[in-house]
Amino acid sequence: MHADVSALFPGRWSPRGFSDRPVDQDVLDSLFEAARWAPSCFNEQPARFLVASSEADLALFRPLLVDGNRAWADRAPVIAFVLAARQFRKKGTPNRWAGFDTGAAWMSLALQASIRGLATHAMGGIHTDQVYETLRIDPEQWEVLCGLVIGWPDPDAPLPQWARDAEAPNARRPLSEVVTYGPIP
Amino acid sequence: MHADVSALFPGRWSPRGFSDRPVDQDVLDSLFEAARWAPSCFNEQPARFLVASSEADLALFRPLLVDGNRAWADRAPVIAFVLAARQFRKKGTPNRWAGFDTGAAWMSLALQASIRGLATHAMGGIHTDQVYETLRIDPEQWEVLCGLVIGWPDPDAPLPQWARDAEAPNARRPLSEVVTYGPIP
Repeated sequence: MHADVSALFPGRWSPRGFSDRPVDQDVLDSLFEAARWAPSCFNEQPARFLVASSEADLALFRPLLVDGNRAWADRAPVIAFVLAARQFRKKGTPNRWAGFDTGAAWMSLALQASIRGLATHAMGGIHTDQVYETLRIDPEQWEVLCGLVIGWPDPDAPLPQWARDAEAPNARRPLSEVVTYGPIP
Repeated sequence: MHADVSALFPGRWSPRGFSDRPVDQDVLDSLFEAARWAPSCFNEQPARFLVASSEADLALFRPLLVDGNRAWADRAPVIAFVLAARQFRKKGTPNRWAGFDTGAAWMSLALQASIRGLATHAMGGIHTDQVYETLRIDPEQWEVLCGLVIGWPDPDAPLPQWARDAEAPNARRPLSEVVTYGPIP
């Protein structure tokens, strides 16, 4: 049994079947606009997105994904990397909430995408060292957290068999494993 | 100028004025249900919420907030702490996406709250060491990320003057600071 919840949340999932149809700039903007409004500690807004939507940028970004991800992600019209600022900008002290707050921005992006009929898929499987180098990211200043694929879902997209077999929403742990009332028993 | 975006995102903010009206269990469930559907690396679902909604639990949780937060949060009907599992459960290896994925779960919770007319406010200002101790959280296993206040917004709630003066949505950085196309210039 599920608690009553907006269909937005259980309705969003991370497919591997993407169309090669481009995403118009105003639609893409709406995703980052949603991310921009995510809350953050001291309103620091540590999240930053490096985005490829032109053929030239996609050619640069695609080899930064591991082969298992390229097998389906190469077809998508937008690839991005998600970065978190390691320090608070005012004081220069470490921001231990940077990853957490950047996760909130990513979730907003993914939900706005879902509202617009787009799909997103976050990937830990990236060549992280090469992402820093190729995209000229200062590792002292930024943490590269993951890659993103953004595009229109296409159930008929050509997929390797392993991806075809996995092409369905994942299950979730029951609410009783996620929420505890009071201290840990 | 803002890009077009669902009103859900810019419409959500983190007030300090909360009503003391209780939150029904089914409404509260819907928030954690939304959190439960957030995506995570390898579908690990590292987020966990320790929640106080009874008077007994609230009496235990409130002193874990710093005084500046108690000044407004004591009135609210629900306080929670957000935890991230430090290791992948299958392999026991460190999960460097735990904070990021837990941030995604928190954002889903906050947006579902907003959909139901509730307000949420995340707080870094907590007595973290005491949270681990009082709530019997194993620090080897879990990272305590922040506290949450959940309840019905009340613009007429009594607030200290500094909180009254701050009672408005924060601004955000422009999209151009959040998104870069291609590598960092």
